Amino acid sequence: MAEPTTIFEDQPIQAEELLGLSPELVAAVAVALDDQHRFEARIQVEPLRAPECADLLQLLRPELRHRLIEYMRPDFDPQILPELEEDIRDEIAEQLGTTSLAHAIARLESDDALELIDTLDDQKQRDILQKIPVELRGMVEEGLTFPEDSAGRLMERQFVAVPAFWSVGETIDFLREADDLPNDFYDIFVVDPRHRAVGTVALSHVLRSKRPVKIQEIMESDIVSVPAMMDQEEVAFLFSQQDLVSAPVVDEANRLIGTITVDDVLDVIQEEAEEDIMRLGGVTSDDLYSAAFVTGRSRFSWLFVNLLTAIAASIVIGLFEGTIEQIVILAVLMPIVASMGGNAGTQTMTVAVRALATKELTPSNAMRVLGKEALVGVYNGTLFAILIGGVAWYWADSWQIGGVMAIAMIVTLVLAAFSGMAIPLVLSRTGIDPAIASSVILTTITDVVAFSAFLGLAAWLLL
Amino acid sequence: MAEPTTIFEDQPIQAEELLGLSPELVAAVAVALDDQHRFEARIQVEPLRAPECADLLQLLRPELRHRLIEYMRPDFDPQILPELEEDIRDEIAEQLGTTSLAHAIARLESDDALELIDTLDDQKQRDILQKIPVELRGMVEEGLTFPEDSAGRLMERQFVAVPAFWSVGETIDFLREADDLPNDFYDIFVVDPRHRAVGTVALSHVLRSKRPVKIQEIMESDIVSVPAMMDQEEVAFLFSQQDLVSAPVVDEANRLIGTITVDDVLDVIQEEAEEDIMRLGGVTSDDLYSAAFVTGRSRFSWLFVNLLTAIAASIVIGLFEGTIEQIVILAVLMPIVASMGGNAGTQTMTVAVRALATKELTPSNAMRVLGKEALVGVYNGTLFAILIGGVAWYWADSWQIGGVMAIAMIVTLVLAAFSGMAIPLVLSRTGIDPAIASSVILTTITDVVAFSAFLGLAAWLLL
Repeated sequence: MAEPTTIFEDQPIQAEELLGLSPELVAAVAVALDDQHRFEARIQVEPLRAPECADLLQLLRPELRHRLIEYMRPDFDPQILPELEEDIRDEIAEQLGTTSLAHAIARLESDDALELIDTLDDQKQRDILQKIPVELRGMVEEGLTFPEDSAGRLMERQFVAVPAFWSVGETIDFLREADDLPNDFYDIFVVDPRHRAVGTVALSHVLRSKRPVKIQEIMESDIVSVPAMMDQEEVAFLFSQQDLVSAPVVDEANRLIGTITVDDVLDVIQEEAEEDIMRLGGVTSDDLYSAAFVTGRSRFSWLFVNLLTAIAASIVIGLFEGTIEQIVILAVLMPIVASMGGNAGTQTMTVAVRALATKELTPSNAMRVLGKEALVGVYNGTLFAILIGGVAWYWADSWQIGGVMAIAMIVTLVLAAFSGMAIPLVLSRTGIDPAIASSVILTTITDVVAFSAFLGLAAWLLL
Repeated sequence: MAEPTTIFEDQPIQAEELLGLSPELVAAVAVALDDQHRFEARIQVEPLRAPECADLLQLLRPELRHRLIEYMRPDFDPQILPELEEDIRDEIAEQLGTTSLAHAIARLESDDALELIDTLDDQKQRDILQKIPVELRGMVEEGLTFPEDSAGRLMERQFVAVPAFWSVGETIDFLREADDLPNDFYDIFVVDPRHRAVGTVALSHVLRSKRPVKIQEIMESDIVSVPAMMDQEEVAFLFSQQDLVSAPVVDEANRLIGTITVDDVLDVIQEEAEEDIMRLGGVTSDDLYSAAFVTGRSRFSWLFVNLLTAIAASIVIGLFEGTIEQIVILAVLMPIVASMGGNAGTQTMTVAVRALATKELTPSNAMRVLGKEALVGVYNGTLFAILIGGVAWYWADSWQIGGVMAIAMIVTLVLAAFSGMAIPLVLSRTGIDPAIASSVILTTITDVVAFSAFLGLAAWLLL
């Protein structure tokens, strides 16, 4: 409905429209591609923003994706590339070829260009670097000297820095006249004669101050400087913990060499949380778009480790073959104890892994938390001992079996709660990522404890 | 080491210093509090920033925390409160009392004040609201009218909006003279006569333009407006997907009522990822700081559900009591099949839950992904069938048992991979959070399939 008082043609985009592509649109594009209707397909894709284009490309079948890329090649939006999952990005980069790719990369900001070039193999990196503008090439090459996942890789190399003795007026005049400034910036950095960051000024403060005021008077000197070699995970922790919006990145001599802003960190936080989720689930990476056999192979090693621990648990059961032969109901009931132990341990372990990641679990409170978890184990162990002891008594029609089950349950749940906290703590002390290794070790322990407590007690008390 | 050329006393804070409190500092504060050395304790706490203060309070034993709060009361930094975990925040809010608390809240930004007041019970909310400045009260009360976890709760109510026909000069003069502007802001919003957002101007563009230039000429009209009722999870998705730095929040009539910036969203993204991790691990919330019996009680219900599923699996085993009685080695080997099934399913489920959360898994590609997962199951199922069939053959000294184990393994792994993808998909279609319910349903299915395939085949083929 046209409204006569509206003086602008462009209305803001409604947020709801951006929450995922509609299946209808995806289907329409797929049909147009299937029929090789180049114009039709391009009309559909035209209004999409880069992130939606990336989503669309990922949702299409490989042959249709290939065709769409050909249709889009003449004016391919390089912003699409950083939004793609790695597997698909490699595929599309291969298809575009180094010339088109270099052309696209030349239009990216230096940090996006770096991120993208970084994912290519060495030969391709060299080819692309030779084809992009020399200034960008310098920035990318310099960026590549920093270790992967470091602040130096993450930072934007273009920033605005002024000396503290400048006035607001001088600063504004400089900003108006300089022509090599970044497109958008939110803070101006203040440096001393050695180019060390000594403060920042939010642009809003520059704008609201009179021209003669000195930068030194309005700058914020309580700033947090990030060393270029710091791991991106720690940078992200810092931003979220300290509610930072931007921070200067410095070299070993404390000289300002770049800036990181909160939006760069958003992706890191998501990646890190995703990594924890994946590792706890026994998956090495987000393999949704990988080919079946690639996915299968990457999941194999985790399952193989699990096989070894399952065999260990079976060896424990094997020790009690004689006991099971005499009282078969034990074989029926034993998985209950093991399963409860595994789940109770996983609960505690999840809390521990997260608390370690957010640095809430430290040597200062480790002992207290361990003691608490043991108490939780006693609490739930007792409740479930009563519940499950009753079930077993009824089922096996034997109060002795009920009793054995109840005792085994308490022992298992206390040990599960304790191990669920202790294993991640010990692993993180030894420098191993607790998210990767904790659950294998935990299940081995809970299985072995559950089976040996239950079957051992039964062998001792009932035979 | 003093450097003679340095003209500033304040040096930037080194990032490393902020990555978690040193255990030595925590120990020193604890000793000072133990000995009731008020001055000593305050000297130690003085240089800490609010997030570290919050960490410190959380690490201390309750009685020492209580004492430290009393020492800090006269100049308690309200910024500490939003950084605390809920349990500890409630405890400290209780101790401070409504007068001190209102005094502290009055110094917060409106969104932080709202977040904090929101966590209090109704009676306390009313008490506090009466004691804070009337302007802040208005904003908080208005904020409370929006649903929990909505954009309206998240947004900052103070922002800068100008009409499009203003010149850069008029805008700068307005900014210099207005005295009710927010402390920091990065964008200026452009509104039409009906106060609807039609664009934004980054402050850097205002600064770099000549005074006579019209705002309309430099504004970015390709903006994404967020409805106040939108769920914060979707807002966070939008920011990370579209790489937004700030967005206008609008009411039903599309009028501008607030703004959300990327740093507000950082916490939401962390919360949501944390929620997924916790739910997958069977924990309702981060209960690190809860008392043991509170933690125990909250974890009980999940374990109880797990007990029911474990009993279901045992009932399946019970059906084959006769078979086990004749071939005891089956009881020894069966947990291996179940454990492999559970782990393979969890791998797939983890990928599915994450892909649903990031909207990478949609109706458009669900079928393709399902088919792929089934293939992965066939791939790993075959490999493990050979491995484990061999182990079982050697162990039981029977190629028949090895064969049964191998077939059961393929069946279980294919079904595990398929269910790991299908369960989250179906749950999300029915509106249930896949992170909560998937793993219980999955383990029930993999256990039942594993036990009945293995024992059933054995009963059929070997007896």
